[in-house]
Amino acid sequence: MNATLQQELEVQTKEFRKLIAEYCRLESVAAQNRMMKETADWVEKLLKDTGFDTRQLEVEGSPNYVYGTLKGKSDFTLLLYNHYDVQPEAPIELWNSPPFETTEVDGKLVARGICDNKAELISRICAIRALLAVHGELPITVKWIVEGEEEIGSVHFDAMTRQYGDLLKADGTLWEGGGFNEKGQAAIALGFRGLLYVEYSVDQMKVDAHSGGAHALPSAAWRLVKALASLKDANGKVSIPGFYDDVREPTEMEKRASQDNIDPEQEARVKSMYGIESFLHDRSGYDLEISVYEPTANIAGFLTGYTEPGIKTVLPAKAMAKMDFRLVPNQRPDDILKKLRAHLDTQGFDDVQVKKLGDGDPVVTPIEGEFVQRMIQIGRAFTEQEPEITPLVGGTLPLLGAMKNNVGVLGISTSGNPAYYGSGAHAPNEHIRVKDISRAIEFNAFMLTQLGGY
Amino acid sequence: MNATLQQELEVQTKEFRKLIAEYCRLESVAAQNRMMKETADWVEKLLKDTGFDTRQLEVEGSPNYVYGTLKGKSDFTLLLYNHYDVQPEAPIELWNSPPFETTEVDGKLVARGICDNKAELISRICAIRALLAVHGELPITVKWIVEGEEEIGSVHFDAMTRQYGDLLKADGTLWEGGGFNEKGQAAIALGFRGLLYVEYSVDQMKVDAHSGGAHALPSAAWRLVKALASLKDANGKVSIPGFYDDVREPTEMEKRASQDNIDPEQEARVKSMYGIESFLHDRSGYDLEISVYEPTANIAGFLTGYTEPGIKTVLPAKAMAKMDFRLVPNQRPDDILKKLRAHLDTQGFDDVQVKKLGDGDPVVTPIEGEFVQRMIQIGRAFTEQEPEITPLVGGTLPLLGAMKNNVGVLGISTSGNPAYYGSGAHAPNEHIRVKDISRAIEFNAFMLTQLGGY
Repeated sequence: MNATLQQELEVQTKEFRKLIAEYCRLESVAAQNRMMKETADWVEKLLKDTGFDTRQLEVEGSPNYVYGTLKGKSDFTLLLYNHYDVQPEAPIELWNSPPFETTEVDGKLVARGICDNKAELISRICAIRALLAVHGELPITVKWIVEGEEEIGSVHFDAMTRQYGDLLKADGTLWEGGGFNEKGQAAIALGFRGLLYVEYSVDQMKVDAHSGGAHALPSAAWRLVKALASLKDANGKVSIPGFYDDVREPTEMEKRASQDNIDPEQEARVKSMYGIESFLHDRSGYDLEISVYEPTANIAGFLTGYTEPGIKTVLPAKAMAKMDFRLVPNQRPDDILKKLRAHLDTQGFDDVQVKKLGDGDPVVTPIEGEFVQRMIQIGRAFTEQEPEITPLVGGTLPLLGAMKNNVGVLGISTSGNPAYYGSGAHAPNEHIRVKDISRAIEFNAFMLTQLGGY
Repeated sequence: MNATLQQELEVQTKEFRKLIAEYCRLESVAAQNRMMKETADWVEKLLKDTGFDTRQLEVEGSPNYVYGTLKGKSDFTLLLYNHYDVQPEAPIELWNSPPFETTEVDGKLVARGICDNKAELISRICAIRALLAVHGELPITVKWIVEGEEEIGSVHFDAMTRQYGDLLKADGTLWEGGGFNEKGQAAIALGFRGLLYVEYSVDQMKVDAHSGGAHALPSAAWRLVKALASLKDANGKVSIPGFYDDVREPTEMEKRASQDNIDPEQEARVKSMYGIESFLHDRSGYDLEISVYEPTANIAGFLTGYTEPGIKTVLPAKAMAKMDFRLVPNQRPDDILKKLRAHLDTQGFDDVQVKKLGDGDPVVTPIEGEFVQRMIQIGRAFTEQEPEITPLVGGTLPLLGAMKNNVGVLGISTSGNPAYYGSGAHAPNEHIRVKDISRAIEFNAFMLTQLGGY
């Protein structure tokens, strides 16, 4: 790296702090439709100020997508994806600082959305600005799509790609996510699990009743508890008939990657972070790594009746719960939704309403592809060690299905985000470490340069 | 009734409106320890202004009890019980008017706590003031105890009766509750079910996690759903071993009362009020009436994770639920608590914490007693028809056990409260009907007069 670029990267690492604080101040909670327009405008201005041709892509019912292009020295076109929306800050009482004020504590920058996924966009911007400052142009052509609904399941991404798919064609695509692991390896992810997110509701009476009537009046809470309980057996396996029908065995490559990724130190760190003695089913090592190929049914929320301190002897009229299913290849969200409904009906729970709030296909990009192999080389060159390849991430990018089906492009995620295993995505006190910022920016600059030489 | 008393009762019926609005404005939510002192002071002043010798009984950790005595013409001593605390107003969004502003709508007075149990205390006060205005003294001696913890299970009533039991000795005792039924019969209740109120909590991780980790991390929500589900079988019977051991068969008198109380019109009214097609297990008639002799396990609340609109893909670290068990003779709360804990441990749910928030014994006053028989005659004389006798009410007066064990007195409830089957105790838009006010005041005056002639 030449001295001038090194200086520019240092300048940008300082600039990062200013930009991330501005960005995180925008309370872009998609679930609550808060400040979406302000945030889209802010992101568009950021890209425009950097040199991108920008526009906002309008899709009915959706916050706007921010789109930008910047022609570079080579025609090789890289599509970058980020999202400007964040998870809700609730439960607010568990935050040690105001969620939307970026606060530095013990070498960490704390704010809602900072690791997921605002810091990555800013790292990419900083790297691009440094390269432009030194060379006057980028080594390659960059397209950028920034959405505002990732945290609510990218509900309009399918519609957007049908409408604007041509704008997104590229030679390689980088999704969000991925830092370096604690051994300093570049983390490369080839796929994400799918998602089916539903809300259950049971509505048994017009008004709450005094619980002295519980021998005679129906209980929405009991109906929902019993319905949910029917979804899993005593061993934690999902009991919906046909749920596992389309689950394929992990491939040899996937088994090998799980073997390679065994990391007792990382296991210990995760346990300590969550304060747990053991992982589910007491798994560790290979069993733990390979368990990502099991689909899940997670209770994301449950609310009924009186939940404040003290006693209220109430028989609640209504109950609701939220559940996300993480799906593995080759499960399909609509098929699972159908099987869920059929199961509830068979079990006599036709009074339990199920509403789909979001979905996404599980998508895995083949490791053999040219772009993937090039990115592995870049990761290796930057870190001087083998990258950590994760064929399947536990989370979901619901947009991957739309990109695959409507645009015909796959992608990966890699180390452009200054996040780490303990960043607490979606949790209170979400943060990044200050020490990881400069490396993320440098990696992005290195990657763009290397792709230009390709 | 002489003309002067009739006039005074009309004056007091107007006065009632002013007093109830003042009383309901005091947000005496015991569960949240709101305005307890102000309300106790207000009630004490009300009694003092009426002519009672008053004091506040202090018990460590409890809001004060208001106590008053008023010597009457006869030595026959009647103990009145009321409570000045109310249920929380949540869920606030279901109220059509501010919960603590008494609002008249369609012939109803709406306010939190108005039927349970502030209107009864005001009705009694109004009757007493009318009698004092006409006769200068009461026909009998009246003692009054007003507590501030009924809605949270009368948690210090046992301690209060141990400390001040002698003050509460009386020849007859009237609890709260009881209006007239829709046929105009005086409603007389001889007993209440017991209560065990518990809070469950499961605490699996230090912080919430991204639900993409659900294949590896423990779920507090699933643990609690499965633990609760284990408490009832598919038919709604409680599955805790030994739960039904001490349940006695209804007596012949109780079966006869259930038979007498069959009322298809009332069933239709209750169904319409709650918007339900049928009662639990499709019961009606005798089966419905007698079902109060079955103990219940009611889920009064459940909270975990994200429950606001939209999607949050979170694996919650914690979950909590509240449950009230209504106990029938001769179940005992402490015994049931022990059996509940043992059941959870046996089922492998030793990670589910159980905390007792309140309890109370089931207590039934024998119908044969002199005071009960006298009150039945008074009800009959006032209404010119047979009273409706309910040997066991579905709800609980947790203080009955303490009164029985520590003071040695039993009691009943009867028609001093202008409440009706649709008053919505504990629910949003709790109310009384304006048309019921004057009858309640008149009944109280009639009853005091008749007891004086006894």
